[in-house]
Amino acid sequence: MNLKFHGWFTECSPMWPGQAFSLKINKLIFDKKSQYQHIQIYETEKYGRMLVLDGAIQLTERDEASYQEMLAFLPLNSHPNPEKVLVIGGGDGGILREVAKHPAVKEIVMCEIDDHVVAACKEHIPSLASGFSDPRVTLHFGDGMEFLGSHAGKFDVIITDASDPVVPDDDEAGKDGPAATLFNDAFYARLHEKLNPEGVLACQGESMWLHKDLIKGLMKKSRELYPVVEYAYTCTPSYPCGQIGFILCSKNPTLNLRVPVTKWTSEEVKRLKLKYYNTDIHSASFVLPTFMTEFLSSD
Amino acid sequence: MNLKFHGWFTECSPMWPGQAFSLKINKLIFDKKSQYQHIQIYETEKYGRMLVLDGAIQLTERDEASYQEMLAFLPLNSHPNPEKVLVIGGGDGGILREVAKHPAVKEIVMCEIDDHVVAACKEHIPSLASGFSDPRVTLHFGDGMEFLGSHAGKFDVIITDASDPVVPDDDEAGKDGPAATLFNDAFYARLHEKLNPEGVLACQGESMWLHKDLIKGLMKKSRELYPVVEYAYTCTPSYPCGQIGFILCSKNPTLNLRVPVTKWTSEEVKRLKLKYYNTDIHSASFVLPTFMTEFLSSD
Repeated sequence: MNLKFHGWFTECSPMWPGQAFSLKINKLIFDKKSQYQHIQIYETEKYGRMLVLDGAIQLTERDEASYQEMLAFLPLNSHPNPEKVLVIGGGDGGILREVAKHPAVKEIVMCEIDDHVVAACKEHIPSLASGFSDPRVTLHFGDGMEFLGSHAGKFDVIITDASDPVVPDDDEAGKDGPAATLFNDAFYARLHEKLNPEGVLACQGESMWLHKDLIKGLMKKSRELYPVVEYAYTCTPSYPCGQIGFILCSKNPTLNLRVPVTKWTSEEVKRLKLKYYNTDIHSASFVLPTFMTEFLSSD
Repeated sequence: MNLKFHGWFTECSPMWPGQAFSLKINKLIFDKKSQYQHIQIYETEKYGRMLVLDGAIQLTERDEASYQEMLAFLPLNSHPNPEKVLVIGGGDGGILREVAKHPAVKEIVMCEIDDHVVAACKEHIPSLASGFSDPRVTLHFGDGMEFLGSHAGKFDVIITDASDPVVPDDDEAGKDGPAATLFNDAFYARLHEKLNPEGVLACQGESMWLHKDLIKGLMKKSRELYPVVEYAYTCTPSYPCGQIGFILCSKNPTLNLRVPVTKWTSEEVKRLKLKYYNTDIHSASFVLPTFMTEFLSSD
């Protein structure tokens, strides 16, 4: 299943069979197998630098803002006072960079399993790294599930910036990736325990064009724990099908995640150097096409 | 620049350099060079049947509704009484199929340059073809520009469903495709002449991730002719960057294209067999990310 063109990187995965996206490469900058995964950083011809984990594109500099800003500000701007924030995963630093822009945030804890991802991105994709040096940030390396079990504090907002649960393998069906546990029931239950009573959770939620069943299952699981559960999405050309979603949950039954309580003017959006997020797109990102609303509302 | 994997179709174009999208193919069903272009129809493994013109994906059965429904119903549902509709291009029949669903439409004229596209799609992608047999439809084969010059009537809504102005060639820069004239000034002026005083125009408007300058130029040109000009977009995984836009223009200065005057309930959406369009997504499709609003508002 491995397609190769000379001078191009091609992404194939059992999670999106029958389709492949390729980017022209200037050079391979970093290539290492860590204890957890195969980490590669490329310089592409048209998409800037690119992080690849186990053969799957995690981000490119050209379009990463569409993911990072939306996954960070959908929950942060829905919460009336997001002082304490936990980020699970996100070792590239992009989510951290955005969370650190939010003026209400006082403390950011990040738990990433793979210190080699952090080190590689800090060195080779510095455009992502500003959050790591923020004095409000505490960085832990370890398994997200174990961290939640041992950490004493609670959070106003938790963001899980996970890679896909299944990664390519020699066999067509693929194998569990290091993020597989971030999609299971026990992990979801622990996230719930670690959220303050008014807390908001935001998780990477896959693409509606590829993984409707997975999304519906995650939302159903979330509804057993939260009174408010929503699905929103963003457009990121370098992700499969050009799109990725987010599952958003609130412990506060009266919170409307679709309408931000923090509304930024276009001057504030400019000052915060936002490329994608704005107050209008916050609400628009919850508006789903007919096939998805019908699928989610069916039994 | 031609990338080939055995058993896959790969799309490369000078209009989106440095990136390529590939779909796994079961078989090539139709392959013919007409007077205007190279027409191919494939059966893909995961995207149903696919129409390719001059090497560029025009549609796949899996996601074509996201394009056809939006390009048809954004103008039709913005117009208070869209009785007479002109479609330029759209030889695959998808736009016609959607326009024919609209209960207010009394007359549909279509002008397609290439009769071989119509014949091939009718035979090999019958899921697109229902509009061709609608008694309200008159089909002309010929150049859109010439048709506009010779046709006596005027229309309430005009939709141009054009392929890209530039198509791949042996040379890296590409060459003009059969749709190139549909992007020039004289053509825009003629469309304006053929619209009734309250008329609405909708044109295929390329992707904001790839062709910001082209889009801005087309909108500027449109503003010289129309008091209301907007850009909206839809998400279509098999188009480059997973997205394509529309330029919408109204002769009526008080018409708000963002809010449909015809609002369909979810029952009506189901009855019309819509997979993508709904009243909420109509409005959401005009909400642009920050990079695009800032670019369009800059000098």
